[in-house]
Amino acid sequence: MSVLSPVLSRIDRDLDKSLERLFELVRIKSISTDPAYAAEVKRAAEWLVADLKTIGFDASVRATTGHPMVVAHHDGPAGSPHLLFYGHYDVQPVDPLELWHDDPFAPAVKELEPGRKVITGRGSSDDKGQLMLFVEACRAWKAEHGALPCRITLLFEGEEESGSASLKPFLEANAKELKADFAMVCDTGMWDRDTPAISVALRGLVGEEVTIKAANRDLHSGEFGGAAANPIRILAKVLGSIHDDNGRVTIPGFYDGVEETPQQILKSWEGLGETAETFLGPIGLSLPAGEKGRSVLELVWARPTAEFNGITGGYTGQGFKTVIAAEASAKVSFRLVHRQDPAKIRAAFREFVKARIPADCSAEFAGHGGSPAIQLSYDAPFLIRAKDALSDEWDKQAVMIAVGGSIPVVGDFQKMLGMESLLVGFGLSDDRIHSPNEKYDLQSFHKGQRSWARILHALTS
Amino acid sequence: MSVLSPVLSRIDRDLDKSLERLFELVRIKSISTDPAYAAEVKRAAEWLVADLKTIGFDASVRATTGHPMVVAHHDGPAGSPHLLFYGHYDVQPVDPLELWHDDPFAPAVKELEPGRKVITGRGSSDDKGQLMLFVEACRAWKAEHGALPCRITLLFEGEEESGSASLKPFLEANAKELKADFAMVCDTGMWDRDTPAISVALRGLVGEEVTIKAANRDLHSGEFGGAAANPIRILAKVLGSIHDDNGRVTIPGFYDGVEETPQQILKSWEGLGETAETFLGPIGLSLPAGEKGRSVLELVWARPTAEFNGITGGYTGQGFKTVIAAEASAKVSFRLVHRQDPAKIRAAFREFVKARIPADCSAEFAGHGGSPAIQLSYDAPFLIRAKDALSDEWDKQAVMIAVGGSIPVVGDFQKMLGMESLLVGFGLSDDRIHSPNEKYDLQSFHKGQRSWARILHALTS
Repeated sequence: MSVLSPVLSRIDRDLDKSLERLFELVRIKSISTDPAYAAEVKRAAEWLVADLKTIGFDASVRATTGHPMVVAHHDGPAGSPHLLFYGHYDVQPVDPLELWHDDPFAPAVKELEPGRKVITGRGSSDDKGQLMLFVEACRAWKAEHGALPCRITLLFEGEEESGSASLKPFLEANAKELKADFAMVCDTGMWDRDTPAISVALRGLVGEEVTIKAANRDLHSGEFGGAAANPIRILAKVLGSIHDDNGRVTIPGFYDGVEETPQQILKSWEGLGETAETFLGPIGLSLPAGEKGRSVLELVWARPTAEFNGITGGYTGQGFKTVIAAEASAKVSFRLVHRQDPAKIRAAFREFVKARIPADCSAEFAGHGGSPAIQLSYDAPFLIRAKDALSDEWDKQAVMIAVGGSIPVVGDFQKMLGMESLLVGFGLSDDRIHSPNEKYDLQSFHKGQRSWARILHALTS
Repeated sequence: MSVLSPVLSRIDRDLDKSLERLFELVRIKSISTDPAYAAEVKRAAEWLVADLKTIGFDASVRATTGHPMVVAHHDGPAGSPHLLFYGHYDVQPVDPLELWHDDPFAPAVKELEPGRKVITGRGSSDDKGQLMLFVEACRAWKAEHGALPCRITLLFEGEEESGSASLKPFLEANAKELKADFAMVCDTGMWDRDTPAISVALRGLVGEEVTIKAANRDLHSGEFGGAAANPIRILAKVLGSIHDDNGRVTIPGFYDGVEETPQQILKSWEGLGETAETFLGPIGLSLPAGEKGRSVLELVWARPTAEFNGITGGYTGQGFKTVIAAEASAKVSFRLVHRQDPAKIRAAFREFVKARIPADCSAEFAGHGGSPAIQLSYDAPFLIRAKDALSDEWDKQAVMIAVGGSIPVVGDFQKMLGMESLLVGFGLSDDRIHSPNEKYDLQSFHKGQRSWARILHALTS
């Protein structure tokens, strides 16, 4: 531990400085899905490059057809492995802004409850806080040893929250530069506040936007109601028929490629003690809404979904307007598992909708990204070493879990660069990522840096 | 015709002046449903009072708990009838503003097609243009004869487009002042551009807003999707089940009090030559969306509906957000016919929704007005006289039709003041009321004034 100890000590000593650096990054409004914030996204990339150069990385902002990538390289000792670390510096929109207790772009440390401090702000957890953990671990290592323990490449994306349109072309164009022995991705969570976790399965995602068009203009519902098609009614009918009474998705072929989870895995998840009450209670719910007869962990980790993420049509202001709208639209997403094919799911959804539209109306579609699910091997050597390092830092056995969300880059690394990923993250289920009042536990920020230093040591010693 | 002729001539001569007065009124943004425009609504009332005083009306702005009423009185010869004329000076919202070709509050006369001039602007037809017809007829009469042919009371409402909350209390508190021999209401349309019409049946209306609440905050659909209730999914399921495959409303008891229209009436409507093609073609549709097996005129004139006027939930901005919203809401309205009871329909809808909400979610409701349908007698003497006067002006037999929309005041006059209504209006089906690019034909504005002068003459000579 003689190599590791001074690095950990320095992380402890420099916590306030690392916090100030995170604050600077969080203050930048890098909302990638909204074109109005494009300059802010670029500014976040430039901030990262400037910071990485102070550590000695050969860092640069790399243009794409969308938001830029940040790529940084640092040499390691001869014969050491080459590791790639991935994170994303873009963030989700902040609406509805009125629900935030603090300015989402004015980060601060607050005491959430006695003894529990958190960092507030959009991106404090997802993913600015998490990506800075590794940067800070590298900074401390370099400061103590004047070198890094292995060759390291950093890849920070600016479009993760908006479909990652540039990721594949960028990986393809820069495959040689980016190909490493394996990747490390820090965009996941711990099992709970005391228990570190490694994620070995991730759901895929298909995003779709459908617009139903009926009359060629808005109509008065008195004049035309009863005779003219109402696009909200059509949309509701379509969306309302996507789930059956048992919570199963009714789109033909939707479950193609979905496997039953092995009993042994289900049993290990049961051992984690999560119930409908513990999982849904904190968000004010109690009844699992997915397929009947399955545990909440199986529902979010190993079952596919159809979710409606947004819907709009007609008059939505104050008061009332007796209008029949010309169109109505919804944003629909599908979480995929195992071998479900994103392209087939997208096509099946579109066919499902089109089959339910009256002949004098139309449906238009826009795709918002798609990626298959990922299943990693449980016994890769780097996984075992990382698990031990995490267990040491947290003084508790790290657990292998699944992730309900999508991290498309993991699949892209696998397919395009032949590179497996180690998914370690320190988010907590109450981080409110994608919601108002996002936060990151100060403990996650501190011990997360230490954890990455330990993992670096474990993988290179 | 010696009394009437000079009045008609003066209307012809003063058309430009009457147009300028209408423009002044249309320029006032009296959107009653949006509290931001409350001062504009009041300003419209004050404008009317000032204008009516120039004719010699004893006019005043009368406060209510909502937007004010305008009431004006003018004496008539001893023994002459007392007539009440009703109109509303508030207008619908103008969104989506980007679809307007001209500023909705900068009225102008435009040539729609060779020989057909129209007045543009929000309220040019509904109902500022229509209410000014009667005011101009009175002005011309007074100017020519120094008196009016009978005692006239004007009642102009400022909440017709937002539920008429103050109307009933106002009628009750001022019943003695407002009770007349019968009422005249100008808020309806002609059968077509050449054929005047009197409306003898009107559908009622129940407005409802429902909000489905699920989790206590917005959720990440990766983290919670499949386990947590999605309020958009619940709302879509509920709304999607309100109509069966034959277009009938499935809410229990919904059709209580609905009568089949007499064959004789249906036959007379068939004679008007309206088909799905002629009715729906101009709005870009072709298939009647209501109950199967009924003509479009029966659907809009004599059958009840459930319409979804607005829906919103989750992320509705550009791009995509993988969120499960905490709530979703819809504005729903029901058009009523015959003896359907608004209170029972409202209660039945709420029960219908509540029965379909998961036990850990909730539904909240807000009512937006309610009024029963109206059926007037076909053979009242005032109706026959007005029909003849209209036929004279337009040189074509006026037809007796029904109205798909609601004019709650007609029911209130009947119930609270024991007063029948004569519904004559000059709107056209392409007036785009409640929609972008509302207009009023200049011919409607001109011959409408002349028509009311003729009706006044027919009813008092």
